[in-house]
Amino acid sequence: MAGNSFGSIFKLTTFGESHGPAIGGILDGCPSGVKIEIDKIQRDLDRRKPGQSSIVTQRKEADEINFLSGIFEGTTTGAPIAFVIYNTNQKSNDYNHIKDSYRPSHADLVYDKKYGHRDYRGGGRSSARETISRVVAGAIAKQFLSSIKFTAYVKSVGDIELNKPYQELDFSNIESNPVRCPDKDLAAKMESYIKQIRKEGNTIGGVIRCVIQNIPIGLGEPVFDKLHAQLSKSMLSINAVKGFEYGSGFSGTRLKGSQHNDLYNNDGTTKSNLSGGIQGGISNGMDIYFDVAFKPVATIMQDQETINKKGAIVIIEGKGRHDPCVVPRAVPIVEAMAAITIADFVLLNRTIKF
Amino acid sequence: MAGNSFGSIFKLTTFGESHGPAIGGILDGCPSGVKIEIDKIQRDLDRRKPGQSSIVTQRKEADEINFLSGIFEGTTTGAPIAFVIYNTNQKSNDYNHIKDSYRPSHADLVYDKKYGHRDYRGGGRSSARETISRVVAGAIAKQFLSSIKFTAYVKSVGDIELNKPYQELDFSNIESNPVRCPDKDLAAKMESYIKQIRKEGNTIGGVIRCVIQNIPIGLGEPVFDKLHAQLSKSMLSINAVKGFEYGSGFSGTRLKGSQHNDLYNNDGTTKSNLSGGIQGGISNGMDIYFDVAFKPVATIMQDQETINKKGAIVIIEGKGRHDPCVVPRAVPIVEAMAAITIADFVLLNRTIKF
Amino acid sequence: MAGNSFGSIFKLTTFGESHGPAIGGILDGCPSGVKIEIDKIQRDLDRRKPGQSSIVTQRKEADEINFLSGIFEGTTTGAPIAFVIYNTNQKSNDYNHIKDSYRPSHADLVYDKKYGHRDYRGGGRSSARETISRVVAGAIAKQFLSSIKFTAYVKSVGDIELNKPYQELDFSNIESNPVRCPDKDLAAKMESYIKQIRKEGNTIGGVIRCVIQNIPIGLGEPVFDKLHAQLSKSMLSINAVKGFEYGSGFSGTRLKGSQHNDLYNNDGTTKSNLSGGIQGGISNGMDIYFDVAFKPVATIMQDQETINKKGAIVIIEGKGRHDPCVVPRAVPIVEAMAAITIADFVLLNRTIKF
Amino acid sequence: MAGNSFGSIFKLTTFGESHGPAIGGILDGCPSGVKIEIDKIQRDLDRRKPGQSSIVTQRKEADEINFLSGIFEGTTTGAPIAFVIYNTNQKSNDYNHIKDSYRPSHADLVYDKKYGHRDYRGGGRSSARETISRVVAGAIAKQFLSSIKFTAYVKSVGDIELNKPYQELDFSNIESNPVRCPDKDLAAKMESYIKQIRKEGNTIGGVIRCVIQNIPIGLGEPVFDKLHAQLSKSMLSINAVKGFEYGSGFSGTRLKGSQHNDLYNNDGTTKSNLSGGIQGGISNGMDIYFDVAFKPVATIMQDQETINKKGAIVIIEGKGRHDPCVVPRAVPIVEAMAAITIADFVLLNRTIKF
Repeated sequence: MAGNSFGSIFKLTTFGESHGPAIGGILDGCPSGVKIEIDKIQRDLDRRKPGQSSIVTQRKEADEINFLSGIFEGTTTGAPIAFVIYNTNQKSNDYNHIKDSYRPSHADLVYDKKYGHRDYRGGGRSSARETISRVVAGAIAKQFLSSIKFTAYVKSVGDIELNKPYQELDFSNIESNPVRCPDKDLAAKMESYIKQIRKEGNTIGGVIRCVIQNIPIGLGEPVFDKLHAQLSKSMLSINAVKGFEYGSGFSGTRLKGSQHNDLYNNDGTTKSNLSGGIQGGISNGMDIYFDVAFKPVATIMQDQETINKKGAIVIIEGKGRHDPCVVPRAVPIVEAMAAITIADFVLLNRTIKF
Repeated sequence: MAGNSFGSIFKLTTFGESHGPAIGGILDGCPSGVKIEIDKIQRDLDRRKPGQSSIVTQRKEADEINFLSGIFEGTTTGAPIAFVIYNTNQKSNDYNHIKDSYRPSHADLVYDKKYGHRDYRGGGRSSARETISRVVAGAIAKQFLSSIKFTAYVKSVGDIELNKPYQELDFSNIESNPVRCPDKDLAAKMESYIKQIRKEGNTIGGVIRCVIQNIPIGLGEPVFDKLHAQLSKSMLSINAVKGFEYGSGFSGTRLKGSQHNDLYNNDGTTKSNLSGGIQGGISNGMDIYFDVAFKPVATIMQDQETINKKGAIVIIEGKGRHDPCVVPRAVPIVEAMAAITIADFVLLNRTIKF
Repeated sequence: MAGNSFGSIFKLTTFGESHGPAIGGILDGCPSGVKIEIDKIQRDLDRRKPGQSSIVTQRKEADEINFLSGIFEGTTTGAPIAFVIYNTNQKSNDYNHIKDSYRPSHADLVYDKKYGHRDYRGGGRSSARETISRVVAGAIAKQFLSSIKFTAYVKSVGDIELNKPYQELDFSNIESNPVRCPDKDLAAKMESYIKQIRKEGNTIGGVIRCVIQNIPIGLGEPVFDKLHAQLSKSMLSINAVKGFEYGSGFSGTRLKGSQHNDLYNNDGTTKSNLSGGIQGGISNGMDIYFDVAFKPVATIMQDQETINKKGAIVIIEGKGRHDPCVVPRAVPIVEAMAAITIADFVLLNRTIKF
Repeated sequence: MAGNSFGSIFKLTTFGESHGPAIGGILDGCPSGVKIEIDKIQRDLDRRKPGQSSIVTQRKEADEINFLSGIFEGTTTGAPIAFVIYNTNQKSNDYNHIKDSYRPSHADLVYDKKYGHRDYRGGGRSSARETISRVVAGAIAKQFLSSIKFTAYVKSVGDIELNKPYQELDFSNIESNPVRCPDKDLAAKMESYIKQIRKEGNTIGGVIRCVIQNIPIGLGEPVFDKLHAQLSKSMLSINAVKGFEYGSGFSGTRLKGSQHNDLYNNDGTTKSNLSGGIQGGISNGMDIYFDVAFKPVATIMQDQETINKKGAIVIIEGKGRHDPCVVPRAVPIVEAMAAITIADFVLLNRTIKF
């Protein structure tokens, strides 16, 4: 109830502060008998980890996965799967300058007010390092759901936007560039823009699109646990996310019903897919696609005015090792949360019929 | 788990099909000792009900609230609050023409596939009549949270958009027009546009903005139950919703960190509020504001091609009584879901400190 | 969270006070496609209802079931099943004498302290009338689990105890006598004892045994949701229950391991069944059996000293219409809670394997 | 949902197999600001650990607590508290003889049937080593609830039973003997009996009584989450437990209402306490007391007939290091589960009133 769990049957509970000894979690409810390739999990962790390219934070973390339970002889047993990733490069001293100050647009002040005190070392629980655990659980979910394909990519960085329909893109390009944009030309533009932003000591936001393909019909539980409602929650629970839209999204509000309705083919597929693969909160077998908006990272390499605990205005220096743009590293996180969400609905859907 | 409940402590479970005998629910976890004015609940129901103006469906329903438990001598007792609204004007015959056909962009097909059969009378459980129960629970939540102000209004209908900051609007105008747009000129334009759309036998989408004012600091549970994540789920669980953004939202992705950060005043308030009143998933005491995108209603008064259960193409006639634009009636629903969500976090927040 | 729900997937939420307009509930998560015979539900309600024989309370209630949703054309649809039983014979005046007093060993005082006030009409929410809703949900669970047999009977009333193993009893006798004891001789003794107790204006406790037969292997979730742990909770949640034991129970604590272990036959059945059909919290396919202890009803037809709200000693008269012994009417309640519990585990068990 | 979590707000999720690398858990929802003395936690672990005396298993395990998150500078932060206890003395070879056989009255067969395979090393997840995590969480709960006193002791071993009311016992004697019985003479008898049982290569059951003192009025949520119902579940979830009774328990079924009712003193306390401190599922401020029945350990040091995976009868040898009587080591587990249960109700009770 304190909010560190996600899912009802396929259920992830996470723990860990950015500057504590470790980050990790327990995945309960993963079915027994799923073959687990640890390499695939580590690969997703490597896509998320700092220091992987010149446009992300240069902090170095191995982010190596360790399993403590639930997997025996390469297969899930049905017991809870516990895992730990040790923090090896936390430098708490990096944060002495903010110990008594509240960084603008960070969670420092609200944690202090809510809990009565805070772990001032790098954000503590509010750090995006927490998402490591989601990537682990997501990588397990993907192996459970091996026939379903989860693909996320960077759709925009600042004003640079990839406007082509995803069907025209070559997803195999996504991992070929550090931005994770499947259009190589735009990827190059985004990359140099991010480098320029970094030189300014600034940060920039962006949008990630996620596409889920080969999804079975029938996932999602009316009425509150609609498939897209839970997907939306899962995405908004990721650090720095400000918005979610699926299918026609916000632009669909400008259309008329006669334009927006997806007409059926004989086989029950639809000719168009403004519904985004979901009708009435339930998957209809068409591709699910949605966009996730990320704000610019709040930590900038510039001096900013802020207040300290006593309410006095102080100058907070911009220092430390941070991402100028979070979206490239957030791609595997979006995929992971999508996979975790779908895994839960797949299991729930087994309980629906007599 | 089957998805008909929302909330963890302040918890609503709803029931009812559009053409069954009744719609209703059980609100469990509402604290004892809340004075309940039934009038206020009925008022919100009246704002949602069909037939209230010339731009909404002309179906007639009294939508009268009946309480069965949990309120004694005008005050909540702490026992579960059960309520029923009888369906008085269901005309199942209206739906004979769709008994064997799947209406485009409706939930007919997916319900059939998921459950093995469906209640074909007007959408059954997937009907927006279900939201009656949310309005009831929301109206109770508002009385529990009497110091917090929930205001929703229509921000756009199709391409007609109210672009002013909400701070410049006079909220007292919202209920003065059938569209529920606080700008009277735009409201008039929207109204005539909706009438024109109805004449075409068509429908149109729109956006609702919601503003939550006078909210205490500290609401929201890291990390999965961030305040905005749960708000997002609550909104996406409403029929026809396609997107959610809060604070700077999607447009915030185009900003730099130096532009986007909200700097502090000495008292802990912020000079700007791109954060939308939430930092790290926790309310910071500033106004919370968010936008909710509604697609055009799928039922149009035009003939459409579709398939029947056997996969044969059939023509489905446009008939019955439906809304040309759902957003005016959705305003109280958005407020209700916001209030239900906040009520839960207010109660959860009591358990946080020693 | 406020405690009016039971189950995780097959989930019952109940409402209603003894002297409010109605008792009822919502059963969410019942699979679609279950044929429902309303008669069978009413039959279980009739086994529970007051006035059914000379040894139970002479209050008259029809206790007629009304469904509001979730069943269409005689079959569950997968939508939440809402039901209402109207209170037709509440006489609130019966309770004026206790409005300001706390009845001994009733919940009056603790409700007042916990909630700040109480519904003084006959116990309000703490009344055993609430169990009506459980009987309804249990009767649906039984129809969902038609191959599993749930049998409860009265094992003892006061010191009169049926000590034969249940295998030697003829269950078809249970409903042949008002006590619901399958041994006719003992049943007659119990009946006259209860009549004598009533004449004394007193009440007496008893034990109900429940046997679940033809249960599949594999039900129950380690480690906290062991099958017997959840059964125990379900039984202890029934009014007046003071204890639960399964298999060898308390007497098994006196045995040695060599006496207590159940040795296997070749087919995986066991030669003895001191385990009570459950090993490690999981059903092993043998009969599950357990005992449930009921205290004597607290309302007696004798004057008792007690305190009023001001803490002054007052005499409370014994009047009203009450049961001298609750166990005969509790038999269907025990069965119902057993069936609800098992139904949930049957659904959960579908999610366990790849 | 897979059953490895307990509690709704103060919520423990555990992981770990007896012969995997570690046992541990995540405690979510512990309020911030609780001072934690690690020594007290280790002390309870030491009371539970093997090898502590001559009458328990001689296996050696340090059972040292390691915290990974949620405690900062000696105080809980409100973040999830993760902890790990490494398994240092697992000897998987000890279990080769049972790899293909199902030990009588163990969970081997049902795990295999339920999950499709099993971790055959010492019981895997079904091992009582899992209760380590409960003792950790319980020790934290006790520090959160420092004004409430939890005392468990051994009431009986086989037929040797301590029949005095707990009020006449000197609880300070409990830890003075390896049996954890507060009556020194009986403790000595129990100790020699257990030694004799061990010599026979046998095992014996027993009963633990738990007393909770200085409990606030109002804990427990009607109607399904009655305080005693949840206590019962928490106790039955402990390995080897077969029964639970509170207050007058099973013997209360033999009493008349006039004997059983607890009459009030002017201050709202009761003259007797057959209610066991709970009325209508809610604590009334009197002592809560209950008994928990433990069966004899299934692993005996004698040859037993059993079946292997193919259903053939095989002889299983009695070897390894096991407890002749589990109740002395279960005393801190019972206390822990009681404290975890109460902690949750204390937090829930904060949400009850306006």
